[in-house]
Amino acid sequence: MSIDARLVEVAAQVDGALHALTSADDRLTQAMRYAVLGPGKRLRPFLAIEAGRVLGANAAAVLRAACAIECIHAYSLVHDDLPCMDDDDLRRGRPTVHRAYDEATAVLVGDSLQCLAFEILADPKTHPDPAIRADLVLLLARAAGAAGMAAGQALDLAGSSDIERMQSLKTGALIVASVEVAAIIAGAAEARTSLAAYAADLGLAFQIADDLLDAEGNTEELGKATGKDAGAGKANFVTQLGISSARKKLEALAVSAKARLDLFGQEASSLRDAVDFVLDRRR
Amino acid sequence: MSIDARLVEVAAQVDGALHALTSADDRLTQAMRYAVLGPGKRLRPFLAIEAGRVLGANAAAVLRAACAIECIHAYSLVHDDLPCMDDDDLRRGRPTVHRAYDEATAVLVGDSLQCLAFEILADPKTHPDPAIRADLVLLLARAAGAAGMAAGQALDLAGSSDIERMQSLKTGALIVASVEVAAIIAGAAEARTSLAAYAADLGLAFQIADDLLDAEGNTEELGKATGKDAGAGKANFVTQLGISSARKKLEALAVSAKARLDLFGQEASSLRDAVDFVLDRRR
Repeated sequence: MSIDARLVEVAAQVDGALHALTSADDRLTQAMRYAVLGPGKRLRPFLAIEAGRVLGANAAAVLRAACAIECIHAYSLVHDDLPCMDDDDLRRGRPTVHRAYDEATAVLVGDSLQCLAFEILADPKTHPDPAIRADLVLLLARAAGAAGMAAGQALDLAGSSDIERMQSLKTGALIVASVEVAAIIAGAAEARTSLAAYAADLGLAFQIADDLLDAEGNTEELGKATGKDAGAGKANFVTQLGISSARKKLEALAVSAKARLDLFGQEASSLRDAVDFVLDRRR
Repeated sequence: MSIDARLVEVAAQVDGALHALTSADDRLTQAMRYAVLGPGKRLRPFLAIEAGRVLGANAAAVLRAACAIECIHAYSLVHDDLPCMDDDDLRRGRPTVHRAYDEATAVLVGDSLQCLAFEILADPKTHPDPAIRADLVLLLARAAGAAGMAAGQALDLAGSSDIERMQSLKTGALIVASVEVAAIIAGAAEARTSLAAYAADLGLAFQIADDLLDAEGNTEELGKATGKDAGAGKANFVTQLGISSARKKLEALAVSAKARLDLFGQEASSLRDAVDFVLDRRR
């Protein structure tokens, strides 16, 4: 199966599970569902589920953990889009939550989605072993909090010039956690290190590909070499390294990410394909 | 020991623990500490710790769970104070987080304090038994989320006329969870029901006393019978019931709350005193 077809398949499975885990009983829960079931690739759940398959982890447990991660991701997007943060009106072609509903609701939607993530992980339905449930909560809390994703967003808002550190926290921490949940559920301590290294490379590659897309997309359309970030005076991998060096770094990360998967052999082919999928984003 | 002295003693213990659980390494963590260590009675930690004492629960575990609850409470205050919510510049005489720092930081502080609460609970340092840690996470996630505290805040913003339901979610859910963490740590399933009923009564009494204070405080100062909420066209227990009926409801709740503690005998005297403390707020 092609990576594109597999992504679509996994996204449908995840969206079905997220639909079952949310309600639409009132305005708040309707807005939560609007946020978490918006258009998206579901890349983090994909990584969790594929890593789980490689490790032979309990698939139902990994699916629920993948949903928890998507709840955290969705909450971070809702709060990042707020007027006091990035002030975005649209996300993937739809009004952002504070535009479709209102700002107060958007704050509460993010807050409640974060809660829901931990509720899902701690629920005995996720796994019969409470040690695994507690480990999953601890992993995700550390990845999302003031030493992880939230720290990265704070560095981004402060205009940090250490782009690699900022991005490894802002987007990398949750991408790494996505494969780690699978390792925790499978009880695969050794595999966890390799998968985490793979995901760290992939997350960085993803961001560089994004920055190249920003720069090169605009090069063609507007006839100038710099894009949205440069226009906004915002540092990114391309504005710091230049297009050519950023491309080289992206290729090197792709090679490195795939090498981390060597020990898993043919089983990890879809995780390898995910690297190519990220590379292809800039073509 | 008087209830006032005991409250001060417990608050000092909780603040010491919260200080140790937070850092001030960067602007975000400094703002988190500013929020969680601001002035306050630490009523929720007090209830957790005193309930834990009654039940003979592991005191170190209850203290950490009490800190987690205070983190959730502090996060809710930071977000409730935001311009898009209640738009408050001051909280207990100090600038609110979005005034002392900035709005984006205040959003991230709330987000990170919520994360920290779950990180504390899931950490093996809280309790050696992972089943207890997972149960604590599940309890707090349900109390704080879209079926608990966040739902109450949404109802408040929407101007719900069902004040009792709104308040039982907005403030009651977390107050009830405060005594329940002690019961979970003590493994006291039967006591949990009575303590939860006590806390539900206490939480409601607390809110009615607050509404009476709002109305009667202004009666003396401004010579009119209605206060801030009535002035803002906002329904509360006093605007809905009138002062006399609200007082009667408060007294009835106080009697009921104390009766819930009968099975604990003399051990529960500080929890009984907490009821009088709440009553005294309006004198």
